[in-house]
Amino acid sequence: MAKIAYTDLTHMLSPKSVAVIGASDNPNKIGHIIMQNYIDVGFSGGLYPININAQDKVMGKKAFKKITDVKMPIDLAVISIPAEFVPETILECKKADVSSIVLVSSGFAEVGNQKLEDKLVSAIKKTKIPLMGPNCLGVMNPRTGNDTLFLPTTKIDRPKIGGVSFASQSGSVGSSILDLISGEGFGLSKFISYGNANMVDEVDILNYLANDDDTKVILYYMEGVKRGKDFIEVAKKATMKKPVVIIKGGVTEQGAGAAHSHTASLAGSSQAYEAVFRQFGFTIGTDLDDLLYFGKIFETQPLAKGNRIAVITNGGGHGVLATDAIYQNNLQLAQLSKDSQKALRKAMPPIVNIRMPLDMSGEANAQSYATALEILGNDPNVDAIISITLFQTPGADEKVVESLASFANTKKKPLIVVSTGGTYTKSHVSLIEAAGVPVYDSPTSAARALAALINYSRYRNRV
Amino acid sequence: MAKIAYTDLTHMLSPKSVAVIGASDNPNKIGHIIMQNYIDVGFSGGLYPININAQDKVMGKKAFKKITDVKMPIDLAVISIPAEFVPETILECKKADVSSIVLVSSGFAEVGNQKLEDKLVSAIKKTKIPLMGPNCLGVMNPRTGNDTLFLPTTKIDRPKIGGVSFASQSGSVGSSILDLISGEGFGLSKFISYGNANMVDEVDILNYLANDDDTKVILYYMEGVKRGKDFIEVAKKATMKKPVVIIKGGVTEQGAGAAHSHTASLAGSSQAYEAVFRQFGFTIGTDLDDLLYFGKIFETQPLAKGNRIAVITNGGGHGVLATDAIYQNNLQLAQLSKDSQKALRKAMPPIVNIRMPLDMSGEANAQSYATALEILGNDPNVDAIISITLFQTPGADEKVVESLASFANTKKKPLIVVSTGGTYTKSHVSLIEAAGVPVYDSPTSAARALAALINYSRYRNRV
Repeated sequence: MAKIAYTDLTHMLSPKSVAVIGASDNPNKIGHIIMQNYIDVGFSGGLYPININAQDKVMGKKAFKKITDVKMPIDLAVISIPAEFVPETILECKKADVSSIVLVSSGFAEVGNQKLEDKLVSAIKKTKIPLMGPNCLGVMNPRTGNDTLFLPTTKIDRPKIGGVSFASQSGSVGSSILDLISGEGFGLSKFISYGNANMVDEVDILNYLANDDDTKVILYYMEGVKRGKDFIEVAKKATMKKPVVIIKGGVTEQGAGAAHSHTASLAGSSQAYEAVFRQFGFTIGTDLDDLLYFGKIFETQPLAKGNRIAVITNGGGHGVLATDAIYQNNLQLAQLSKDSQKALRKAMPPIVNIRMPLDMSGEANAQSYATALEILGNDPNVDAIISITLFQTPGADEKVVESLASFANTKKKPLIVVSTGGTYTKSHVSLIEAAGVPVYDSPTSAARALAALINYSRYRNRV
Repeated sequence: MAKIAYTDLTHMLSPKSVAVIGASDNPNKIGHIIMQNYIDVGFSGGLYPININAQDKVMGKKAFKKITDVKMPIDLAVISIPAEFVPETILECKKADVSSIVLVSSGFAEVGNQKLEDKLVSAIKKTKIPLMGPNCLGVMNPRTGNDTLFLPTTKIDRPKIGGVSFASQSGSVGSSILDLISGEGFGLSKFISYGNANMVDEVDILNYLANDDDTKVILYYMEGVKRGKDFIEVAKKATMKKPVVIIKGGVTEQGAGAAHSHTASLAGSSQAYEAVFRQFGFTIGTDLDDLLYFGKIFETQPLAKGNRIAVITNGGGHGVLATDAIYQNNLQLAQLSKDSQKALRKAMPPIVNIRMPLDMSGEANAQSYATALEILGNDPNVDAIISITLFQTPGADEKVVESLASFANTKKKPLIVVSTGGTYTKSHVSLIEAAGVPVYDSPTSAARALAALINYSRYRNRV
């Protein structure tokens, strides 16, 4: 088998110096927004605005007419200029010995401009500089303050630093999910929006993220894969190291047509993708929300030994729905050990039936949750726990959060929480997620996330 | 066919006078919370605390030891006392000529107390007073301030007045979804949590809500139906008047087992229910979120003439996902008329491909949305519109909200919006929903909601 060719992304993701080609004092220009973001996040490396019409300074920084004028090492050039000028600018980047390029500009194959596309491809081939794009948002690495996104911080929240990396072929999916991630309990390692993938593609990105020690979980939105065989090789290795959650756009014939128009990528048949994805341990999501739902369980919870789920609840209806969802996702309710049954019978009021799901009633308080979690945590017949904790009930308050957090700290087995509700509930959900326990607003999404974790655990135990 | 026997719910939902049996000065007692809620929402009718140990007053109101002491007409008695005292209290309510009862207390068949259950059934049969419960939260009617819920307003948000009614066999599902409804763009007509359904059951509730002029949409969580044939008769009539969205708990064998334990109702096979539900025009949800997703499209949007969907977007990836979701839900992309194509070509910048989905790019602004909506609104080949409006983009701001609101005001055809994102997005989503346009955070949930509307439209057009 031929060796796989990788484009290295290190300079793009962690540059020590950045040139913004198309930087401008005009706040409506994309180059302005990109510069502003570097200034706002406090990028500590060299920052060089480049603009053919620049006089002395742009946005208060010494400006250059051409990249070749900088005369300093440039790890990353972010290009945001009209498409027609892009090919020659790439050639100039070569002359300036630029180490990598994020090409934000659009107007190539994706809008049917084949002539310009040919010129672009020729420039890329000639220079061989690692290049992301065109038609992309680029990259974000909150650890280093590297942020090429042309989205002002007023319109999109920036996530905190964490272990989840997210790659998206689509800028709109990328930016909107990034925005949502900021409101979640988990943080970001790397964000990559790579657009048309004329050079840096799925293979390079998956390989980079698989080997990035700061990345614990990979989330991926893709519409097509350019190097299918190589991708499979990289995927095999990636999923042995960490979970990879994939959402595939263009799974219907018509959706694939829209994807082709959008990023000029030829989307393959959905069956072929899905078969490959599953075979190599990928976790497949079907809705954008799955990126968050699956991302947070993978980041925070240990792998599971099996699929026997204990459910404790302070609301009967939610217990019924959780039971349905468990069996619909090929999981099963745990059969508690005799010891657990005895211990629960002793600890719970007589009104509580000792069975799964364990309906502790609306009177259940922090002590009820702590006791039940301890017993189930020690039960060898229980592989994972869903704690349904409804904060509308008389017994549930911030002390229940402590019970959940204490159990989670033991890392004995996966624990997830279901809490459905408004203001009071949401304030407690934030506390629970801050303590490292993922919370879901319905039993259905909770069971789907747990099934994702358990299927991946099974894959890891098998291979 | 025998005439269906209905229990009338008018006194329960819109009482002019309420007695709270079990009212107490002890804030930990359920009877205290119920009294407090009546006081907090400012119930304008007569309010009588009853407690066997009462001296002069309870919670500042003249109190009575027994319901028979009141000597005033009582439309509704809310009973919240230990289960063992309930049967005789019901008999006393008869002596006091009480018009209806909400029985909050639990501890009957649902915890295996068959002896007490028999006594309860006997008292109900003897008195024939319309009775809801036991083991229920009861009712809420924000128009009249009638609120029997034993959930303090600090723990659960109260929704505004509106056209959506929600009935739930489960108190936990009922209260948590009620809490979520408060954060949505729509308001509540009636809330009913009826528990074990010893007397007031699914048939009575569906019949009442179908004939309630303030109710435009019915949402229903149920675990079983006691009078199957009667229910079908009522359902037929209900769905000819208004949409009915149902979530069924206990659709798996194991879930049905949990449901039996929970509300002592025998859940039938899921296939049988689903076949009946669909045949009579019910909309079936599979996740709790569907109650909100479907509820808001039904409350705000007109019925559709067909399933041809126009998609406009300012983000390509969302357009791809929307296309997938449209075809996965048996809808189709609209084929625009020649006139529309010409008009769009003239109005849009050259970079925009005139096709479905219409990807207007991140530059799309309020004018782009207004123009596209006007053209698609007049196109006879378009039955409904999904507007994907991502607020992370440079062009999208509060003026786009006006474009969406203006179109919605015409009520020409259904319009729904997809906006995915964080703080900036959520503040704009609230504005859009306040203008009567439902917003979804993913193309998948949007397409599912639109399919629900279109399937119901088809049913109404056919029968």
